[in-house]
Amino acid sequence: MGLVVQKYGGSSVADAEGIKRVAKRIVDAKKNGHQVVVVVSAMGDTTDELIDLAEQVSPMPAGREFDMLLTAGERISMALLAMAIKNLGHEAQSFTGSQAGVITDSVHNKARIIDVTPGRIRTALDEGNIAIVAGFQGVSADSKDITTLGRGGSDTTAVALAAALDAEVCEIYTDVDGVFTADPRVVKKARKIDWISSEDMLELAASGSKVLLHRCVEYARRYNIPIHVRSSFSGLPGTWVSNEKPNGDVQVEHAIISGVAHDVSEAKITVVGVPDKPGEAAAIFRAIADAEINIDMIVQNVSAAATALTDISFTLPKTEGHKAIEALERTKGSIGFDSLRYDDQIGKISLVGAGMKTNPGVTADFFKALSDAGVNIELISTSEIRISVVTRQDDVNEAVRAVHTAFGLDSDSDEAVVYGGTGR
Amino acid sequence: MGLVVQKYGGSSVADAEGIKRVAKRIVDAKKNGHQVVVVVSAMGDTTDELIDLAEQVSPMPAGREFDMLLTAGERISMALLAMAIKNLGHEAQSFTGSQAGVITDSVHNKARIIDVTPGRIRTALDEGNIAIVAGFQGVSADSKDITTLGRGGSDTTAVALAAALDAEVCEIYTDVDGVFTADPRVVKKARKIDWISSEDMLELAASGSKVLLHRCVEYARRYNIPIHVRSSFSGLPGTWVSNEKPNGDVQVEHAIISGVAHDVSEAKITVVGVPDKPGEAAAIFRAIADAEINIDMIVQNVSAAATALTDISFTLPKTEGHKAIEALERTKGSIGFDSLRYDDQIGKISLVGAGMKTNPGVTADFFKALSDAGVNIELISTSEIRISVVTRQDDVNEAVRAVHTAFGLDSDSDEAVVYGGTGR
Repeated sequence: MGLVVQKYGGSSVADAEGIKRVAKRIVDAKKNGHQVVVVVSAMGDTTDELIDLAEQVSPMPAGREFDMLLTAGERISMALLAMAIKNLGHEAQSFTGSQAGVITDSVHNKARIIDVTPGRIRTALDEGNIAIVAGFQGVSADSKDITTLGRGGSDTTAVALAAALDAEVCEIYTDVDGVFTADPRVVKKARKIDWISSEDMLELAASGSKVLLHRCVEYARRYNIPIHVRSSFSGLPGTWVSNEKPNGDVQVEHAIISGVAHDVSEAKITVVGVPDKPGEAAAIFRAIADAEINIDMIVQNVSAAATALTDISFTLPKTEGHKAIEALERTKGSIGFDSLRYDDQIGKISLVGAGMKTNPGVTADFFKALSDAGVNIELISTSEIRISVVTRQDDVNEAVRAVHTAFGLDSDSDEAVVYGGTGR
Repeated sequence: MGLVVQKYGGSSVADAEGIKRVAKRIVDAKKNGHQVVVVVSAMGDTTDELIDLAEQVSPMPAGREFDMLLTAGERISMALLAMAIKNLGHEAQSFTGSQAGVITDSVHNKARIIDVTPGRIRTALDEGNIAIVAGFQGVSADSKDITTLGRGGSDTTAVALAAALDAEVCEIYTDVDGVFTADPRVVKKARKIDWISSEDMLELAASGSKVLLHRCVEYARRYNIPIHVRSSFSGLPGTWVSNEKPNGDVQVEHAIISGVAHDVSEAKITVVGVPDKPGEAAAIFRAIADAEINIDMIVQNVSAAATALTDISFTLPKTEGHKAIEALERTKGSIGFDSLRYDDQIGKISLVGAGMKTNPGVTADFFKALSDAGVNIELISTSEIRISVVTRQDDVNEAVRAVHTAFGLDSDSDEAVVYGGTGR
């Protein structure tokens, strides 16, 4: 038996009872002969409460101090979890991100891991301990200041430690049973996926699936670490995410389509009346990039020859909409466009599956399903293994259900649709 | 203007308003031209809440993890305080005990400081920052684990930093105006002391005065750091504690008696029927010492020649009473005593003042004051500058008031009583 890294999110350790339940599960893994490293998030709403306190003392809390504040949350949960394990008669030691050797850059509030040197974790394991590590945090290589990793940071901590410790698997425990073919709150017939390739999982994550974040899957793919996403409540097998199809005990379906993701957290900005000449689009996206805003889809409309003006639309997180508008307004004079339109009533539906590459007709079927459901398409974007469309937000749930059914993903339908038609 | 270390307790930073008020006071010191290092405790009841959580997951939380847990409290308060200062337009950086170079031994929950290496604090000050340091915590020199300093730990952190940074003064901000000639809740006429010698303060602290703990005063005396205890609410001058009488701006009274302290937190154990032969007392106190219990007063009654048996009484913190009884019961066979009596209804009254040394008659006047007040004395213990008696707990308040009046300490009385009589 090898080393496993287990990660428990805030909802799994929301109170003393949760911590005790998780402690039992960890001890079970240890009893099964594994070396166990546990990455834990802050309890329940702790992080939100700390953010609220920060806002009470300062309207714009500074990065360094904000990170110092937030990391108190995992410090509490990890110490309590270690105590609960010791109370079950097993040895456990907790470690901060810094103590665990999670070395980051110096970008406070969203630091990137640049190295993991888990010497103390290795020693603790060798001495028979279960090692508990604070998720979401590290220490800056340059300034020695405490940093946090931003959204999904604890999952990334877990995968990074799994890679550095050469773990058999990184188990991500959460409050759902795994990755589904669509969001089960929207699609009642969504099925749990037993295995999904890292590549498909990356696309699902980028398209709005919230079970695993893009960053964590990317890290796992790069270091070839299998992830097992599962419920900390049910104990049932969940979804395996890995580069290679596992053989042996994991049932793997050979589906063409992995799933349907949707996302209603984005907004659309249209820059109206952009002079249709070289460098204009570059200037617009330089302004956006300088404001450190990540954008998603981009569409440039065909220019009307008579006016030599064009419109450029792009999508971005709603939370960054205000910042983007400001950045563009500031450069309006130098770029020279007519106006900006902001639309936060959009939704995105994405179909993801490596099978698309070799199965022509997927795109046509996707559009037909949307059309049959009466859903109007506003933007389209594709990759080798994904098609995404932007629609009205009100149409999103209906669209997801229609596509899920059309591609044979409903749990009582037959196996995946077989393609033999013409190109997509 | 030199460097000042300011320490703020949990009641001063109990909520966002308190943190903002303290931030203003800190900024004022900075504006006055000082370099400022601030030591801060956890907010209000945070530590108690964390202890409560720990007890929910484990009846006997382990030292290392318990320390990891508790140190989250100061992490929160120090980060918020730094944010609040920055919000007032001044630069501030917060540091954990470990980052501030507070190096301790490895005794979790009550570690001792063995070195302070404040390189990062010095750098932060030199760059124009106000440095905020987490009180009560350090890092073990051997294991690199996080430790806590136990009761009064934040005061000790402040004094230790003041010594290592060669500060002008260590200001201890609290919720009272300073050190008084007696507890003002018991003695309405108690006076604030403007200056008290470190030596007298040590005796007061050892005798139950709670404003400053023994350990912190001892550290300050050893490194010759003046302490200024004052209110974070009123801003008035408080009490200076130093080895030498200050000259200049501080008014100093030449009192014979510094004050009257009392303590109702102790209990008395009497070991009845101890064989009156060499080694018996040693065996009893070895058993107590092995259980890591600190005892205070010890009295051995005169042996009744007929029985060759004696009684030995000692006082100790009530919180350790159970442990002491257990330790003694275990050794009953080898020591050979008849029985144990436990009494937690005692109180201690102490009169403290360096003037005692050269003023005979103090003891006689002390006993007369108690006698006039109808207070019965059960045990007596003295040092060069202190007399302590144990009485019934119910008599303590009346005894303190009587002694305070008898020695001319009441705020509307004349100056201290003059002695010319015979020895005490």
